Amino acid sequence: MITNVDHLGIAVADLDKAMDTWGRLLGITEWHREQVADQGVEIASCLIGNVRIELTAATTSSSPIARFIEKRGEGIHHVALRSDSLTDDLQEAADKGFTLIDKSPRHGAHNMMIAFLHPASTGGVLVEYCTPRTDQE
Amino acid sequence: MITNVDHLGIAVADLDKAMDTWGRLLGITEWHREQVADQGVEIASCLIGNVRIELTAATTSSSPIARFIEKRGEGIHHVALRSDSLTDDLQEAADKGFTLIDKSPRHGAHNMMIAFLHPASTGGVLVEYCTPRTDQE
Repeated sequence: MITNVDHLGIAVADLDKAMDTWGRLLGITEWHREQVADQGVEIASCLIGNVRIELTAATTSSSPIARFIEKRGEGIHHVALRSDSLTDDLQEAADKGFTLIDKSPRHGAHNMMIAFLHPASTGGVLVEYCTPRTDQE
Repeated sequence: MITNVDHLGIAVADLDKAMDTWGRLLGITEWHREQVADQGVEIASCLIGNVRIELTAATTSSSPIARFIEKRGEGIHHVALRSDSLTDDLQEAADKGFTLIDKSPRHGAHNMMIAFLHPASTGGVLVEYCTPRTDQE
């Protein structure tokens, strides 16, 4: 079951500049920084209430974030929904006709297991499902 | 002060179709529907955890939502941040160099006072500040 909005992914061209902009806007000075090598991204995140804002910059020119910015410019890239049973929720989404980008969960930032749904099946919105990783994953 | 993420505005071409899509995805059958005449939009919203998902369709061809969809297609239109002191937070954002679309708060859906910041000053993200309306507003 989807329980809440976990985070909002924002595609940025320059991570330090974006941290300055969003830090001033949100009154945030402490950021969590992390590279996700297999996605070719570096993220900086902070918590607003119980929703994370995740600034995401490309570290390689073939990164999905580099392609997103090339096509649409900086902006909101995806919304991540917290799932309490990721494999079941993915299967249920597929059964209901949604297109899965990730047929099975993979490792994401913040020690989470994640999977993306294709925006063509979700009204143009790139949706991520996520759930905290267990010791076995 | 900005306290939490209030809602996520999603631009949709067909409100009934979007309610069906997002209802299936989120497991939601109950929606709040409301027209905001001066914005030329009709919205349908639901709560996921403590964040509202606000599907927004144009009711006039000159609506900002109609122009957004014409230019970029359906997708995430804005993120709304809850402010505990809207006039002060707007002034503070302006003092910090952010560009205000709305220099003073105006009426929005859900009995809220709202104001938008220009995406050119917020890394390509259309940001709304909002706070519940008082009896005097």
